[in-house]
Amino acid sequence: MKLAILFGGASFEHEISIVSAITVKEKLRGFKLEFIFCDQDHTFYQIDASKMRAVTFSKGEHKKMPKLSLIKGGFEKKSLFSSEVVGTTVLNLIHGADGEDGIIASLLDFYHIPFIGPRTDACVFSFDKRYTKYLCDALHVKSVAYETMNKNDERKIGLEYPVIIKPARLGSSIGVSIVKNESELDYALDVAFEFDENVLIEPFINGVKEYNLAGCIMDGEINFSIVEEPQKNEFLDFEKKYMDFSRSATVSSAEIDDKLVSDLQNTFAKIYTNLFEGALIRCDFFVVDGEVYLNEINPIPGSMANYLFADFSHTISRLLTSLPNRKRASVDYQYIHSISSAKGK
Amino acid sequence: MKLAILFGGASFEHEISIVSAITVKEKLRGFKLEFIFCDQDHTFYQIDASKMRAVTFSKGEHKKMPKLSLIKGGFEKKSLFSSEVVGTTVLNLIHGADGEDGIIASLLDFYHIPFIGPRTDACVFSFDKRYTKYLCDALHVKSVAYETMNKNDERKIGLEYPVIIKPARLGSSIGVSIVKNESELDYALDVAFEFDENVLIEPFINGVKEYNLAGCIMDGEINFSIVEEPQKNEFLDFEKKYMDFSRSATVSSAEIDDKLVSDLQNTFAKIYTNLFEGALIRCDFFVVDGEVYLNEINPIPGSMANYLFADFSHTISRLLTSLPNRKRASVDYQYIHSISSAKGK
Repeated sequence: MKLAILFGGASFEHEISIVSAITVKEKLRGFKLEFIFCDQDHTFYQIDASKMRAVTFSKGEHKKMPKLSLIKGGFEKKSLFSSEVVGTTVLNLIHGADGEDGIIASLLDFYHIPFIGPRTDACVFSFDKRYTKYLCDALHVKSVAYETMNKNDERKIGLEYPVIIKPARLGSSIGVSIVKNESELDYALDVAFEFDENVLIEPFINGVKEYNLAGCIMDGEINFSIVEEPQKNEFLDFEKKYMDFSRSATVSSAEIDDKLVSDLQNTFAKIYTNLFEGALIRCDFFVVDGEVYLNEINPIPGSMANYLFADFSHTISRLLTSLPNRKRASVDYQYIHSISSAKGK
Repeated sequence: MKLAILFGGASFEHEISIVSAITVKEKLRGFKLEFIFCDQDHTFYQIDASKMRAVTFSKGEHKKMPKLSLIKGGFEKKSLFSSEVVGTTVLNLIHGADGEDGIIASLLDFYHIPFIGPRTDACVFSFDKRYTKYLCDALHVKSVAYETMNKNDERKIGLEYPVIIKPARLGSSIGVSIVKNESELDYALDVAFEFDENVLIEPFINGVKEYNLAGCIMDGEINFSIVEEPQKNEFLDFEKKYMDFSRSATVSSAEIDDKLVSDLQNTFAKIYTNLFEGALIRCDFFVVDGEVYLNEINPIPGSMANYLFADFSHTISRLLTSLPNRKRASVDYQYIHSISSAKGK
């Protein structure tokens, strides 16, 4: 089975995308894999599998490898007298900007390249935490209360302290702060506004139970992973999360009853269905007084949440045969013809 | 002032995009214009200004013109021994799919090409009528009640008849029906599902007042057009709307009081601010019992709603100098360096 792993991107999560790609490579040993690296200037390179190590990129060695350009149907490699097209289905593994904001999905879609990953609209609803809130409200999925603030707004909040402040559009805890009282507010906002013009403010709930669940629709049905209770820190900082992206050992299921598993699965299904088809996503939930709250949608989870699936290779190979088809309009110039003939031209 | 008009696209509105481009060409006579046509197969062509007539495309004459490819900074024209780049700021004038669904915005963004038009997230919220409802609810902007239906759902509606049924993701009234009673429901749904897997169902309100208002943010302030009361038919069918895209004569303002003008402008500002920067959009409103309801956002209105602006050329030239800058992450491989050195590699 062939698959091209696309990773990198002009993103604060560029480096963890490299780590993800290296991890996924190990987990998909039965596949015939290609590796396509997108550097921070948006140049694509074809990376030899044997060079898939972090230092290849940090030392700039990828620049000596073949450049690729997008053309209809794939990535083209040109030499002086010939050209070759990498036309394999792509696994979009670019975390953060480019990969999760809809840019890469749009590119692959425009160039008719089939891919595993969230489509443009699914990206917009999961990348910006404000829009995830809009989605939850519309779908009647519970999520914690929130306020938004733009960098030009007055720095006043209505929620009670402690609150958690997040840049609206970044993952991996970058720029996130817990604010215990008003005196800490300004600094936390300064930090968050370094990364985004908009921030999301939520109450910080202490001692909340957290559960992660991944899945994807295959042959019309959602294939769920096990439910994991992630290790708790106050919250994951970037360096810890970074290491988290290289996870590959299968974890054990959270010790929760069947009712909660089914509540988590039902909430996942509400979010996923009719929006995330084609993607393997991980939803991170809070459980408060037995009620399920959506915390975050990871439309391209770190190392594809491989560690949550008993048979990750099998999941990816089945997903590959269940990708959505985009319906395209066909143009027949009927109106222009009828108008031209009415004008006698 | 230089500007490249991008038009066409793989869209049901491909032909009206051609009409729009021809109209805008006439309205921007002071500009140094380039024309870039995207055909239904997603091949780009450079069109000579003298060939900007509808029959050029319906007869396939564009295929003899130079092909263009996207590269960083612009559209590249290659000849045997040289290449030339059309690096002008683009006016995205592709209506419907590609242009208004975020695909073209993502492409231009990825290739670092400045453009007038809605950004990816703004497209997602305006192209799909369901998501416009989500946006209205989140921003506390009134819109009429709605239900959604997927083609796999049971064909049962909760709203009272008459209702109006719209494919979720098409403009220009394509696939739209008014359903007066239950016996007409099935046929109307069949028509709508021909175009989209999802439909929006709203009560059909008879005799409602309609007002259109266009605008764009320039130098930090919204520049509003006049308010128009559009000509009423039961609703515009595609052929009438098609003619509508070639409008170029300035219309006169609706006869409404200052309070209503300011209510319409305030509602427009709520929708536009922090989402539509860089675009000239037209919002179509209903007014019921003195209350303003958002009906639809046209993020790339027909012929850029030129007829609503006293000085359209001036508006476009000022907008050109107020385009948003995308902030991009810079990658320093700090984490990979620190991990590699910890490992002693």
